[in-house]
Amino acid sequence: MAFLDDNRLLPAEPSQRIAAHELYDAVRALPLVCPHGHTDPQWFAEDAPFPDPAQLFVIPDHYVFRMLCSAGIDLSALGVPRVDGGRTETDSRKIWRLFADNYHLFRGTPSRLWLDHAFQDLFGIDERLSAANADAYFDQIADCLSRPEFRPRALYDRFGIEVISTTDSPLDDLRWHRQIRDEGWHGRVIPTYRPDALVDPEFEGFAGNVERFADLTGADTTSWPGYLEAHRIRRAAFKAMGATATDHGHPTALTADLPQAEAATLFDRVLSGKATAGETELFRAQMLTEMARMSLDDGLVMQLHAGSRRNHSPHVMARHGRDKGFDIPGRTDYVSALKPLLDAVGMEPGLTLILFTLDETAYGRELAPLAGAYPSLKLGPAWWFFDSYEGMLRYREMTTETAGFYNTAGFNDDTRAFCSIPARHDVARRADCTYLARLVTTGRLDLDEAHDLAGEMAAGLARRAYKL
Amino acid sequence: MAFLDDNRLLPAEPSQRIAAHELYDAVRALPLVCPHGHTDPQWFAEDAPFPDPAQLFVIPDHYVFRMLCSAGIDLSALGVPRVDGGRTETDSRKIWRLFADNYHLFRGTPSRLWLDHAFQDLFGIDERLSAANADAYFDQIADCLSRPEFRPRALYDRFGIEVISTTDSPLDDLRWHRQIRDEGWHGRVIPTYRPDALVDPEFEGFAGNVERFADLTGADTTSWPGYLEAHRIRRAAFKAMGATATDHGHPTALTADLPQAEAATLFDRVLSGKATAGETELFRAQMLTEMARMSLDDGLVMQLHAGSRRNHSPHVMARHGRDKGFDIPGRTDYVSALKPLLDAVGMEPGLTLILFTLDETAYGRELAPLAGAYPSLKLGPAWWFFDSYEGMLRYREMTTETAGFYNTAGFNDDTRAFCSIPARHDVARRADCTYLARLVTTGRLDLDEAHDLAGEMAAGLARRAYKL
Amino acid sequence: MAFLDDNRLLPAEPSQRIAAHELYDAVRALPLVCPHGHTDPQWFAEDAPFPDPAQLFVIPDHYVFRMLCSAGIDLSALGVPRVDGGRTETDSRKIWRLFADNYHLFRGTPSRLWLDHAFQDLFGIDERLSAANADAYFDQIADCLSRPEFRPRALYDRFGIEVISTTDSPLDDLRWHRQIRDEGWHGRVIPTYRPDALVDPEFEGFAGNVERFADLTGADTTSWPGYLEAHRIRRAAFKAMGATATDHGHPTALTADLPQAEAATLFDRVLSGKATAGETELFRAQMLTEMARMSLDDGLVMQLHAGSRRNHSPHVMARHGRDKGFDIPGRTDYVSALKPLLDAVGMEPGLTLILFTLDETAYGRELAPLAGAYPSLKLGPAWWFFDSYEGMLRYREMTTETAGFYNTAGFNDDTRAFCSIPARHDVARRADCTYLARLVTTGRLDLDEAHDLAGEMAAGLARRAYKL
Repeated sequence: MAFLDDNRLLPAEPSQRIAAHELYDAVRALPLVCPHGHTDPQWFAEDAPFPDPAQLFVIPDHYVFRMLCSAGIDLSALGVPRVDGGRTETDSRKIWRLFADNYHLFRGTPSRLWLDHAFQDLFGIDERLSAANADAYFDQIADCLSRPEFRPRALYDRFGIEVISTTDSPLDDLRWHRQIRDEGWHGRVIPTYRPDALVDPEFEGFAGNVERFADLTGADTTSWPGYLEAHRIRRAAFKAMGATATDHGHPTALTADLPQAEAATLFDRVLSGKATAGETELFRAQMLTEMARMSLDDGLVMQLHAGSRRNHSPHVMARHGRDKGFDIPGRTDYVSALKPLLDAVGMEPGLTLILFTLDETAYGRELAPLAGAYPSLKLGPAWWFFDSYEGMLRYREMTTETAGFYNTAGFNDDTRAFCSIPARHDVARRADCTYLARLVTTGRLDLDEAHDLAGEMAAGLARRAYKL
Repeated sequence: MAFLDDNRLLPAEPSQRIAAHELYDAVRALPLVCPHGHTDPQWFAEDAPFPDPAQLFVIPDHYVFRMLCSAGIDLSALGVPRVDGGRTETDSRKIWRLFADNYHLFRGTPSRLWLDHAFQDLFGIDERLSAANADAYFDQIADCLSRPEFRPRALYDRFGIEVISTTDSPLDDLRWHRQIRDEGWHGRVIPTYRPDALVDPEFEGFAGNVERFADLTGADTTSWPGYLEAHRIRRAAFKAMGATATDHGHPTALTADLPQAEAATLFDRVLSGKATAGETELFRAQMLTEMARMSLDDGLVMQLHAGSRRNHSPHVMARHGRDKGFDIPGRTDYVSALKPLLDAVGMEPGLTLILFTLDETAYGRELAPLAGAYPSLKLGPAWWFFDSYEGMLRYREMTTETAGFYNTAGFNDDTRAFCSIPARHDVARRADCTYLARLVTTGRLDLDEAHDLAGEMAAGLARRAYKL
Repeated sequence: MAFLDDNRLLPAEPSQRIAAHELYDAVRALPLVCPHGHTDPQWFAEDAPFPDPAQLFVIPDHYVFRMLCSAGIDLSALGVPRVDGGRTETDSRKIWRLFADNYHLFRGTPSRLWLDHAFQDLFGIDERLSAANADAYFDQIADCLSRPEFRPRALYDRFGIEVISTTDSPLDDLRWHRQIRDEGWHGRVIPTYRPDALVDPEFEGFAGNVERFADLTGADTTSWPGYLEAHRIRRAAFKAMGATATDHGHPTALTADLPQAEAATLFDRVLSGKATAGETELFRAQMLTEMARMSLDDGLVMQLHAGSRRNHSPHVMARHGRDKGFDIPGRTDYVSALKPLLDAVGMEPGLTLILFTLDETAYGRELAPLAGAYPSLKLGPAWWFFDSYEGMLRYREMTTETAGFYNTAGFNDDTRAFCSIPARHDVARRADCTYLARLVTTGRLDLDEAHDLAGEMAAGLARRAYKL
């Protein structure tokens, strides 16, 4: 029945494999704590069946379609929607076959691990995807999806999810979250306050967004104090729907702490639409510090995802829009960039700021030393391109010796690919147990400590860091 | 007869060693595809014997003499030619003894692996080089070199070379390549179009070079269109001699895509010799995009070797000239630098641009994300200081999870040290099989896939990426 | 009696463990060569007993208290002295209990390895520290400290120290070094010339320091030539007390080589207190080249510790002062920064400049290529946050293939935590033997060579690099 190796991602060396397996066996079935991700709350509210295999695994997954694109396959042929009105493939079986024909491209990638895991464990398939079995795969998955036990709420239970956070705009009315609550379903689906649309003057429709923010909150968002008040009001509304965290996605980690009068003037500039690129960056920087101050007041945990240069290809942006696999990282500084925020509130043990990076060089040089000193800072898990076996091991190897384990925030699945969630947690648990087994077998940690830590890394650290 | 470990570079852990050995045994004897290097076509045209051991292994190898220099040995004492007219050692046996006395300096380096491999497999020596056996070594190698089976063409066959590219200036008349062709020898020795002398205004004699370019092509190289036309003409001439690729060695990866009128004005500036450092850099940047456009037309594969700060020591430059081991890498940005070129032609599947780096931090952060999205981009192999066992493993560990295997371009031996070519390919094959065996024994890849990939990494990927 | 694994830090794979153990057994008991550190010469001069466990292990160790601080524990509660007159805990047993309660925070860190080693080997404790045994630990250590065999000179002998360097200001009168000498004690405790207070215009009290420098040397330190002369005089005085080295801690590695007239003008500017930040940086840069020239004259080995952004938190600085765990590294360039100094004296085999970094990305990209070419350059060992098992292995993996072993300078314990010195050398010896065993078992090095290198890395390289 299985085509995956049950020992996958555990060390090859026998003594290490035994230690890793023992640790993994004790945590493999722990509940999934999912404090950061991009699933759609509507799924859980409506509990409608997922559509066909291509719409589940190919069309929405930027890891998948960008790799196919890199091999010269047009995104339109993969059904990726067009924003320019151009034609895109709609035959899901045809898209699936194209994907299957090129499945070798994913060798050695985490996508392959996530896909195979779902194919085997969720859909009961017992051989590797190929051109030859593409149709059989399609039929098998499509058949499953038509059954009630593959609907979102059933999968939530089957996956063993304890809590799952979505990522939401302050302008979102949270209707689906409310519906889930009002129905009394036992699943815990909570929002996360992600204010890009309102704190990034370069965000499409920024000025209009700030106006809608006023409508939604009753605050006068044409003034700096009113605008900040609107944030406080919406944050409180998110908290009321269960939110425990905010999330901030910025091109850099720059923060600022201007005197309030200067900040007010800057706000007027950006609202006027006449701000320079530097002022725009400065406004985002100031808002990180403002958000940190609000977090200190309302207790919401703050996440900073910095360093992605979004929409690198203007052609892909023009044809297919945002989030289409063409977001490329760049060098990211934290040590100078975060200083204004840290000078303001960094020594507050009541604040939790979780830092993420796409620049692995910052792990040992900047992030571990910062998190290993400031009480407010924690390190988020290996992110995006580094949410992978080697990426996770490098993360531990480069941060643990300086920051230890307890300044890290556990695992994030960080995905909109719902079916990949168990696979992603499983990869993390296996990688973490591999790392712990290496410490144990080289005399750097006792086995009882490793057991304790395996549980922390699988669930405990995330629960505590995110106050879940 | 052997002093090298036949299992060298394969994993120590038994299950991994077995898997790696099985993979390696299947590819160790595959033909050598050599799409980028610096051998001299005159060797193959004239087929004259190589001179003595010092002239073969010490005097021309910057890996070797820079390490000896770092220990305080004067380059002149090693026979490295002087450009300032100063005295340099000419007694090859004396140079060889100095090298042998200091052979311990190479412990743990790839030079040691390449040298030992050639000593044992090519010259039949069965003990490690030392002060004690320096003379015996010298005599044994000198004796071999006097025999016909050690002449360049015989070695080409003995090494199992399938094709070898040289690196040539557009001003080169390609006479040796023509002679090889005209004689009808079965070896395939092809040129590569490397236009530094004509696209880098800081290159010695730049203005004169542009004039000679006119003489050679009949184009009016005093005008921007004529200058571009001259490139097209010479590229066609290189193609006619078998070239499939161009190569570009720039201090940074900066590209530009100016309007043609601005580019023409910039060309006039640089030709006048009055260009600022910024204009010079901008001209090189513009030429990369022009070359990419020409590649789209004529199908030549484009290589970019960026990031070396050449001739770091002015003393060494003044005494011994260029390429004397004092080229030092620096931080290199790709994600912003390549954007103008990629905006122009990056989404064209008909273009192949192979990227090289001396800044390993770019692997995971910039190059793998770029190559894992843009259809035109491929990653060249680990280069120069990183053309080594650990360097190759880091390259795979940091790129595969994001870009997979099929966005990489196979191995380059990239050397003027002809006798090291089999050793270099062997190191790459062993390192790649070690990496694959790690994936197999940790359940990340099936064995049949690993066999397929081992062959691709040894020869197939290079053949296809370079259209050989 | 032992709670530490005797095989700790040696490879888990049996063939590698055997090789590593054999190498380690041959070097574990070699004398400790300690060419760079921060012990207090007064200890050895007066030979007074060390105070209680908290004052030995917690209060002075920034690795320890910053980790506790990162978990939200106030530095004052740990007894870290206040510079603002605020209250700080003085009950050592209470501090010790707080430390023991939180000992799990150190899992996976080098601090844990160093502490456990001292607890077991020095104080004869046979179980891991915990809340439960905190008092027993305290009593046991306190009891030991009251005995003569735990006084500084006895420990110097017990640890097998061959020589130990302290780090001293040019303004220090070296009275304790003189007392040690005059008494004729057999221990070798030598000073190191560390002129921050006199070469960094941002150092507290800079102008006054330059005045005191005149008093101490008789030179006219209001003029540039007199100021340089004062350095020469103090360097000679340090040499007379046994010094073999200088040390330079700068925020960047920037060097400069201005014409002497310009340097003189710059000196006047910085002395006037009106220098800009750029001039201040330039003065430090110029002084590195001046110091290199003096080293060429007087033979003192030069160390450059670059890249720490000191006192990142103004709150901690205001309450507790310097060196309190809030020094955070940043990106550090060497290839351009060192060029002026290297252009002046870099090719001199008579100069030794040992380079340290907190930016590991510089290892393979900049430092190994520089040290693998320039005769004057050597690489210092993995420093500070990277003075750890993984840090040491990365250091070897990223430098050896380019710079070999003989361009490295051996180990530094670099600590003021006297009791951790044997543990630190032991970690380095185990890590180096692990690295060597990897080379041996993968056919990259012969066993006899590995034995030779293990001895070099444990003691020989440091002795020669530092002229000890």
